[in-house]
Amino acid sequence: MAETRERLLTATNELFRRHGFNGTSLKQITAAAAAPTGSLYHFFPGGKEELAEATIETSGEVYRQLFELIADAAANPAQAITDFFEGAATVLAETDYIDICPIGTVAREVASTNDRLRQATDRVFDAWIDAVTIRFEGAGLPRRDAAELAVTVVAALEGGFMLTRAARDPEPLRAVGRQVRRLFELTLATATAERG
Amino acid sequence: MAETRERLLTATNELFRRHGFNGTSLKQITAAAAAPTGSLYHFFPGGKEELAEATIETSGEVYRQLFELIADAAANPAQAITDFFEGAATVLAETDYIDICPIGTVAREVASTNDRLRQATDRVFDAWIDAVTIRFEGAGLPRRDAAELAVTVVAALEGGFMLTRAARDPEPLRAVGRQVRRLFELTLATATAERG
Repeated sequence: MAETRERLLTATNELFRRHGFNGTSLKQITAAAAAPTGSLYHFFPGGKEELAEATIETSGEVYRQLFELIADAAANPAQAITDFFEGAATVLAETDYIDICPIGTVAREVASTNDRLRQATDRVFDAWIDAVTIRFEGAGLPRRDAAELAVTVVAALEGGFMLTRAARDPEPLRAVGRQVRRLFELTLATATAERG
Repeated sequence: MAETRERLLTATNELFRRHGFNGTSLKQITAAAAAPTGSLYHFFPGGKEELAEATIETSGEVYRQLFELIADAAANPAQAITDFFEGAATVLAETDYIDICPIGTVAREVASTNDRLRQATDRVFDAWIDAVTIRFEGAGLPRRDAAELAVTVVAALEGGFMLTRAARDPEPLRAVGRQVRRLFELTLATATAERG
């Protein structure tokens, strides 16, 4: 039974990546999950909204963990920025530019129309921003600089996904990654110089 | 008659800002425009797709012109960045965080599902990136730096819209604007120092 719940979440995630929230029907989800309609309401009594909320939360946590893994493996946060943006650009190019993560699209679709889902996307973005802030602080940036730079990294990443998918070209996301890394390095150099 | 066409475009733009492409029906558009269904197909024989393409093009051009106006009025491109991001953050906060521009949401919705509309969003982003590149080059940046920074400004702006709408808080977009301005200023200082 737990397997059916997983299949429903995976199918929802995949469909949101291609069609977004409004472009995905419950019928498509149960068909893709090979699950009866009744099972959807068994696991998600709140229907599409509850399923979407669980998908946003699960997918958000997977991406946070991926970021932590990449940051742990990198020599420093500057290299982690490059690894994350380059990795995302490569995956997008290799998967025909299907959305790498459904949250950005869903966030824009629901921001003015579904407050429960808007709050779910906001919690995910906050968790990502916190994770990046901690890494930047660990590298020696003052808290305030680290937090503001982390907001910019998440915004630039999401906007970079959008430009790369619109152009069907990995280069915009790569360019954004190079610029964001430069901003981090320049900010760190300034902070280090100020500390003397 | 031309007035009906305008009303249809305006209604589509407003509905896309709230509900996105997939969340908007032709019925909602004709109702909001107070136009008979027949008039929609008279002006846009290709139906929703053609109407969406015209909306993306019109709205993209309006925003490009707005950027030029703000850049003309600002003392320099650094101030123009602040004016544009601060202005957008204020408008979002004052209009209950309805999307300030429908193109970013539609771009993500259609990227994998409608190639004609994907290309329309790509042309708009390219026009914006070119406009910003020209200003940055005019300020003294080498072409390559100017272009890569312009891509980053557009990505950060679109990602900043997303974060500010998800949080219902103008601060993320403001923070992104401050960081992007800093990146421009540091890049300009480096280029100026290198020229001697």
